[in-house]
Amino acid sequence: MVQIEQDILGKNDAIAAENRKRFHQANQLVVNLVSSPGSGKTTLLTETCRRLANDRVVVIEGDQETANDADRIRETGVRAIQVNTGKGCHLDAAMIGSACDRLDLDQGELVIIENVGNLVCPAGFDLGERHKVAILSVTEGEDKPLKYPDMFAASNLMLVNKVDLLPHLNFDVQACIDNARKVNPEIQVICTSATSGEGMDEWIDWLQKQR
Amino acid sequence: MVQIEQDILGKNDAIAAENRKRFHQANQLVVNLVSSPGSGKTTLLTETCRRLANDRVVVIEGDQETANDADRIRETGVRAIQVNTGKGCHLDAAMIGSACDRLDLDQGELVIIENVGNLVCPAGFDLGERHKVAILSVTEGEDKPLKYPDMFAASNLMLVNKVDLLPHLNFDVQACIDNARKVNPEIQVICTSATSGEGMDEWIDWLQKQR
Repeated sequence: MVQIEQDILGKNDAIAAENRKRFHQANQLVVNLVSSPGSGKTTLLTETCRRLANDRVVVIEGDQETANDADRIRETGVRAIQVNTGKGCHLDAAMIGSACDRLDLDQGELVIIENVGNLVCPAGFDLGERHKVAILSVTEGEDKPLKYPDMFAASNLMLVNKVDLLPHLNFDVQACIDNARKVNPEIQVICTSATSGEGMDEWIDWLQKQR
Repeated sequence: MVQIEQDILGKNDAIAAENRKRFHQANQLVVNLVSSPGSGKTTLLTETCRRLANDRVVVIEGDQETANDADRIRETGVRAIQVNTGKGCHLDAAMIGSACDRLDLDQGELVIIENVGNLVCPAGFDLGERHKVAILSVTEGEDKPLKYPDMFAASNLMLVNKVDLLPHLNFDVQACIDNARKVNPEIQVICTSATSGEGMDEWIDWLQKQR
């Protein structure tokens, strides 16, 4: 079993390395949004697209089923492509390579990948992205970085999302950040809400600085 | 790859069949709680345990890391055991068989399994349980049954949880139920909140009727 797993991951890593080289050569920034289902990734992403609509951004949406999310993104005027994984629990590097071929990317584009909602499996699959960005909704509880450490260890940035709901919840933002830094001392953190707009400028700035 | 997947699932199914036989012979009801991370499974479960504490109930907790959840259950006076899956994204039948050996179950006990928070992978792994119960928090969005159909197709009951937060959200409960019934026309539904107590009597009644 360990050998099979190593073979699958080894093959994925080789394709991810090709993706990364291609993105680097074309000066494209690729970020991979990872989270539980229902963390608010798509709502945050539609608001992000609205703010960046004329600034060379494309989206790759991953879901087991439905094209709902790509439809939501296209409504903002941004190009989007949906990848359905069927029984699969994560996007892999080959899916991203193929999606990029179909998108016919331009030099310098920002490619935002929304992975399948899953705090476990996508952590192990390099897509060739520059950064993984973990999104954690304040409705989920501040213990999640400790219970799903691989994902937070693999991410460069954590967005603590839906902070507009904090008045209605028992959620300790600082404890959540402390937990994330226990598994990844370097992780950056921005508190966001697409509903109230809190943190959106900071998140957009973060993206633009990486380009 | 398909062959390997079939072998893994075939082996799991064989152990699950042994578990099921053993549970049936000892008149034990086993339910498997499945959901995203942060759906409120553990809080719902601690409240369930408080209400059933003297009624032969034990809990098996699954998480990648930490023993936090089993600790929370034990505080209610209910026996609990923690299974850490490490890199693994789901509990499997062998883990449950082994946990039941260690728990030294009595005749007629209710065994509640809290699976790893993951709306994808646990759907494919039979543990020998009588029922899967899918928990969906109203913070997650009503589209989740369509986007993660396997889990809702595999479950007999859906708990629409954290309904105390409905006044602060845009969440259409009926649309959520309609979506769940598109992928599983037979699925039963109870709206619950461990915080307000809504639906808890109905959920406890449902459990007791299965015994």
